Amino acid sequence: MLSNHLQNGMETARLVWSRLPNTEDGEFDAIGISKKSDGSSVESLDYEVIENYAYREEQAQRGKLFVIYQVAVKWFFALLIGIGTGLAAVFINISVENFAGWKFSLTFAIIQKSYLAGFLLYVLFNLLLVLSSVYIVTQFAPAAAGSGIPEIKGYLNGVDIHGILFFRTLIGKIFGSIGSVGGGLALGKEGPLVHTGACIASLFGQGGSTKYHLSSRWLQVFKNDRDRRDLVTCGCAAGVAAAFRAPVGGVLFALEEVTSWWRSQLMWRVFFTSAIVAVVVRTAMGWCKSGNCGHFGSGGFIIWDISGGQEDYSFQELLPMAIIGVIGGLLGALFNQLTLYITSWRRNYLHKKGNRVKIIEACLISILTSIISFGLPLLRKCTPCPEADPSSSIECPRSPGMYGNYVKFYCSKDPEYNDLATIFFNTQDDAIRNLFSAKTVHEFSAQSLLTFLVMFYTLAVVTFGSAVPAGQFIPGIMIGSTYGRLVGMFVVNFYQKLNIEEGTYALLGAASFLGGSMRMTVSLCVIMVEITNNLKLLPLIMLVLLISKAVGDAFNEGLYEEQARLRGIPLLESRPKYEMRKMTAKEASGNQKVVSLPRIAKVADIVSILRSNKHNGFPVIDHARGGETLVIGLMLRSHLLVLLQSKIDFQHSPLPSEPRVGARQIMHNFTEFVKPVSSRGLSIEDIHLGSDDLEMYIDLAPFLNPSPYVVPEDMSLTKVYNLFRQLGLRHIFVVPRASRVIGLITRKDLMIEEQENGELDNVELQSTSVRARRRDKRMTSAEVEDPLLNGLLQNHSSSRS
Amino acid sequence: MLSNHLQNGMETARLVWSRLPNTEDGEFDAIGISKKSDGSSVESLDYEVIENYAYREEQAQRGKLFVIYQVAVKWFFALLIGIGTGLAAVFINISVENFAGWKFSLTFAIIQKSYLAGFLLYVLFNLLLVLSSVYIVTQFAPAAAGSGIPEIKGYLNGVDIHGILFFRTLIGKIFGSIGSVGGGLALGKEGPLVHTGACIASLFGQGGSTKYHLSSRWLQVFKNDRDRRDLVTCGCAAGVAAAFRAPVGGVLFALEEVTSWWRSQLMWRVFFTSAIVAVVVRTAMGWCKSGNCGHFGSGGFIIWDISGGQEDYSFQELLPMAIIGVIGGLLGALFNQLTLYITSWRRNYLHKKGNRVKIIEACLISILTSIISFGLPLLRKCTPCPEADPSSSIECPRSPGMYGNYVKFYCSKDPEYNDLATIFFNTQDDAIRNLFSAKTVHEFSAQSLLTFLVMFYTLAVVTFGSAVPAGQFIPGIMIGSTYGRLVGMFVVNFYQKLNIEEGTYALLGAASFLGGSMRMTVSLCVIMVEITNNLKLLPLIMLVLLISKAVGDAFNEGLYEEQARLRGIPLLESRPKYEMRKMTAKEASGNQKVVSLPRIAKVADIVSILRSNKHNGFPVIDHARGGETLVIGLMLRSHLLVLLQSKIDFQHSPLPSEPRVGARQIMHNFTEFVKPVSSRGLSIEDIHLGSDDLEMYIDLAPFLNPSPYVVPEDMSLTKVYNLFRQLGLRHIFVVPRASRVIGLITRKDLMIEEQENGELDNVELQSTSVRARRRDKRMTSAEVEDPLLNGLLQNHSSSRS
Repeated sequence: MLSNHLQNGMETARLVWSRLPNTEDGEFDAIGISKKSDGSSVESLDYEVIENYAYREEQAQRGKLFVIYQVAVKWFFALLIGIGTGLAAVFINISVENFAGWKFSLTFAIIQKSYLAGFLLYVLFNLLLVLSSVYIVTQFAPAAAGSGIPEIKGYLNGVDIHGILFFRTLIGKIFGSIGSVGGGLALGKEGPLVHTGACIASLFGQGGSTKYHLSSRWLQVFKNDRDRRDLVTCGCAAGVAAAFRAPVGGVLFALEEVTSWWRSQLMWRVFFTSAIVAVVVRTAMGWCKSGNCGHFGSGGFIIWDISGGQEDYSFQELLPMAIIGVIGGLLGALFNQLTLYITSWRRNYLHKKGNRVKIIEACLISILTSIISFGLPLLRKCTPCPEADPSSSIECPRSPGMYGNYVKFYCSKDPEYNDLATIFFNTQDDAIRNLFSAKTVHEFSAQSLLTFLVMFYTLAVVTFGSAVPAGQFIPGIMIGSTYGRLVGMFVVNFYQKLNIEEGTYALLGAASFLGGSMRMTVSLCVIMVEITNNLKLLPLIMLVLLISKAVGDAFNEGLYEEQARLRGIPLLESRPKYEMRKMTAKEASGNQKVVSLPRIAKVADIVSILRSNKHNGFPVIDHARGGETLVIGLMLRSHLLVLLQSKIDFQHSPLPSEPRVGARQIMHNFTEFVKPVSSRGLSIEDIHLGSDDLEMYIDLAPFLNPSPYVVPEDMSLTKVYNLFRQLGLRHIFVVPRASRVIGLITRKDLMIEEQENGELDNVELQSTSVRARRRDKRMTSAEVEDPLLNGLLQNHSSSRS
Repeated sequence: MLSNHLQNGMETARLVWSRLPNTEDGEFDAIGISKKSDGSSVESLDYEVIENYAYREEQAQRGKLFVIYQVAVKWFFALLIGIGTGLAAVFINISVENFAGWKFSLTFAIIQKSYLAGFLLYVLFNLLLVLSSVYIVTQFAPAAAGSGIPEIKGYLNGVDIHGILFFRTLIGKIFGSIGSVGGGLALGKEGPLVHTGACIASLFGQGGSTKYHLSSRWLQVFKNDRDRRDLVTCGCAAGVAAAFRAPVGGVLFALEEVTSWWRSQLMWRVFFTSAIVAVVVRTAMGWCKSGNCGHFGSGGFIIWDISGGQEDYSFQELLPMAIIGVIGGLLGALFNQLTLYITSWRRNYLHKKGNRVKIIEACLISILTSIISFGLPLLRKCTPCPEADPSSSIECPRSPGMYGNYVKFYCSKDPEYNDLATIFFNTQDDAIRNLFSAKTVHEFSAQSLLTFLVMFYTLAVVTFGSAVPAGQFIPGIMIGSTYGRLVGMFVVNFYQKLNIEEGTYALLGAASFLGGSMRMTVSLCVIMVEITNNLKLLPLIMLVLLISKAVGDAFNEGLYEEQARLRGIPLLESRPKYEMRKMTAKEASGNQKVVSLPRIAKVADIVSILRSNKHNGFPVIDHARGGETLVIGLMLRSHLLVLLQSKIDFQHSPLPSEPRVGARQIMHNFTEFVKPVSSRGLSIEDIHLGSDDLEMYIDLAPFLNPSPYVVPEDMSLTKVYNLFRQLGLRHIFVVPRASRVIGLITRKDLMIEEQENGELDNVELQSTSVRARRRDKRMTSAEVEDPLLNGLLQNHSSSRS
């Protein structure tokens, strides 16, 4: 029955997948699902530098000083991203802790008189918070729903999803996650914080939000997707660092899980951002210690210190730990599969019916969660407190209004506590802290843990995919630590040793579930170490992660990959598929006709070409001196649209524009060609041209990318894939084999020493003296015989400099 | 004076650099220095898969099962590398600790009677150990000298240095570093352990050492440089993990500092190797606890636990910490510059004179070190012990034969200790532990620390580059922690607060010096955290590293980069140089004539071409049906040499080999073309051909790489660089612009779903239904019209399958 459903889920998912939004030439109407349901559409990013005339112009005007300025701005932005994300995290945490604090203290006060009134208040409080969250998300920022990590992963892989990095998404994410987490749903604020960090970074990257008039021309330094991508990477790391107070973990998360390209320099800047976040959060928490932040302070912000726990382990314990790993892999894979199924069902049926359904759904889930978390502990018989241990500071039952273990709930006698309420009727942070706690052997009964596991697992699966900001880290840790502690209880009973702590097993359980679901390795390991502040358990966490990831991988892909697929985000994995070895580039590109443009194109022709297809890049073909054709570059749709809209480059003659009229072109600077992040950009429908305009011509030579990467037609697709993926390309030309080889480039040709004076003429390759002499000759001869495109562009350049 | 010398040093370095070993077309005899002095020569590695006929043959014979088998072997090898490196580290540590233990206990026993006799014994003991080390290195394994990290970095960047990964180098490294570290020189065993790990990995990668008959055909699974490179990356991480007992630090070191290419999958395997190392080391240390390992156990293996130290810090302390960062940057940069100067002087003058000079040099350095470390504490007046603190377990003076603070040395009265001997007359591990120690305020006088700093810095600079295995981590930590503790003393005196520990400042000093010298960031930070077992200082370590690296970068490059340059290892940085924006591919390749081969080449012609130049790759040009020329691929020199040596592919006719004689070619399997790691391979001088042979022909088509990457002639060098660097290429063809575009490849064309049954015919691209239908047609038509090279290869393929 279940497996049948799973099969269906997979089928549905595959169907959705096969109808992947088709940016290149697909008919958008035929895609349906992912377009209609939330209006999302994906478009590839241009990580490649478009070395067109405007870009060269820009480069030529800028000296070394500008490079230094740009680097300085990058670091300054990294600083700002760190501060911004840190403050956002502090704000979210203070708000959530205060809402939760008011809720629980009020409820505890009222249930002293009436459990029913307390229950109603509890349900209502949660409902209001969740309602505010889902309202913000559905009405104001639809892209803020969910965790956002798959989308950010997609962005850093080279696909821009509409709306994902807007300013409104940022606002929706912050306030939405306060509502959803404060409202006690089975979700966390960690995923949303990553998205928040990325949004902040992206806003800096494009110099503020243009829509809300928060932008400044001065800040618009980064005019290509590549620099923006680096900033977003910093933002991701800052988000994780802020969410878990795990700076190193944040860096590793950004590198391992999110980015697709990686450089040492970037690592250094990402690291800096994380360090800033750590300082900001620490300062804010120091400020809160003096009581400025209400309920926040005693329980807030992760770090579940287990340094008082188990320090050592025996080899006998490795078996139960391995079992935890296996359980984590199985439950994690099941979680991925169930959420995939439910999300695809939601997308296909439920969420199609509009925002009202989404709101009702979230409210129902909130009421259900409240009923279960309040009601189940009521059914549970209280346990007498263990004998007080004078060396331990743990009270039983805990004093009212405090955080801690041994919650007294619906107990008749005084030295009693309700073990189910200790984990269920609590904020998730406190529940985890209780599950991780050492020196509290036999605090929980197996029955309570099992009940909680089943109930919470179900709630987490059901909550996943509702229209509120939702992270999966904290629910994962909750689930994992529950069965971990369960295993730990058996181990304690079986081995009868004193130094085994149930809390340690809870920690390993948490690691195993996250490993089994998200399939991260190094970063997760470091995050677990940082949040528990205990390095000694590192090898054990490693072991458990290895097992749980391996087990999970046997069933399905990681949570984020599965969700990205479902959302139609075409992630390119780092490794080419096996089948690609047997395919050639020509086969992959299909035998559909390539739509190309002439160098001097008639406006009417351009418009009709843009209307007739959805291609985003067009080869430009020119006739060279000898009469044969020559591919002179690639023209992007978005750039064509900019040209059509501005009209200033239109000319009457179908000949290359004459020299000495360059004053015109100077109006086009590189900035105009930059597409705003996450926006749909111009469309051909937005452009209205008179009949006079349509009869004009445009010389495309100054605007095209003169050297897109090319591959010979019979290159194996594996190699093409590597080229595309490693360099983050958007278009590759498949061309016939060359007729001759002009030169060979090897490592030595690329070993150029940077000269102190920075002048081009003095560039001299480091090589043997014989070759160096030859090279000098070459440099001068190269200046005489201009390269091809320089010849094409000669008119323009001579008119300027 | 000094700056003048520095200038000279830089000049010399630049000279050496400009005479960089020239694998492509340089005359080796003209290079001199780096060739003659240690016989080293560099050659680029082939990370690109050569998709020639033999490779395709190999691939075709192998199914999915082989892929699984290969993955399993990779993991199994990762396990073996972990175990091997862990055991090597344990062996080195046990040996060093025992030698040092004997040395110090004997000396302490004898100095009770006579300081002169003790001194002589001490000098002799050290001298013997160093002599054994330098003898092993010079006579047996010259590539084992130095740290080996620059060479490994070069290997992973794509340059193979002769001898660097031999079995004899491994042996030399292990025994050599026991001698040099045990002999008390100012160097560490951490760098050599990284090299050891890499050697072990490489030996697994090529299936054992062929020279020493330790190889097994069964193990030779990895037949390309790419898989071997991944294993070597694992080995590096294992080395660091074993050296510092820092598994996460090891992974990060391998990723940040050593590798040039990085993939998530690799991270996972590297992580596994590190975890294995941690387990092996832990098991071995558990076994040693029962007293099986002599002196090893109490003091051995890093982890200088400072968890008892400072837990918190105030904002006032940030200023002295920033000062530590600046000092670290300055001293680190100076260290790099001085070592660069001394190493280049050694290479140019001293080491040219042969092995005897190297041996004498090392012995002199050993005697000097012994005299300073024994003599200086003698001159120092002893200090009375501080009043005993009952809560502290630190004894003063320490009991004889123990490790710890407060060493009694040349003191007349009993409750006295010699603070200079505490750090100088000790193993470096113990000295660092003493410098890091908390609760020992005012143990050291400023005068002693300053003396030690100057003396040890000088010794470290002088020792660097002598012909013994030498790491720079431990000396760096020694230097850094000395001035760190010095600053800490002033801070303690100035702020007069109780919770400030000098040991914390010593740790920050250590981090700052390593940051200023090696310029690592995240990995160094994690290593420092792991070796001190204290997460709370993470933000402070980050701060100090940021400052010291920034300061150091203002002066010169990192230690390993500088050394790599000096050794003529052409490392390609991840970022192209600024000047490259203004150069084109054609300019970079030079206008020297490209030497190309015809498809059917006469043996005599091939031999004369191979003799007349040093190129490692040759384009192969054929005449297509229409009569025009066509570049059909790239032929490697090493492959040509294999063909010439085996002679079995010679044919009499200058026409493509006829069908139905394929039985011949089957004798060439892919393995024969694989070049052993670090070896020079075949040379044209090794091949002797009779006059009959010279008149024969070879059809090169089955052996060439049919699709090397190509770039158009006027592509900017920045883009070419990115292509070369990101994909780890060895040759790029510069070709004329294409005349037409056959197809365009975009992201969607690469989104291929892997089919369950794995059959090629069922491969279907995930796209809209319209396109998918087109594609089906395409697949069949593609089978009819064979791509170009398949046509060329038709004879062979039809003869086989």
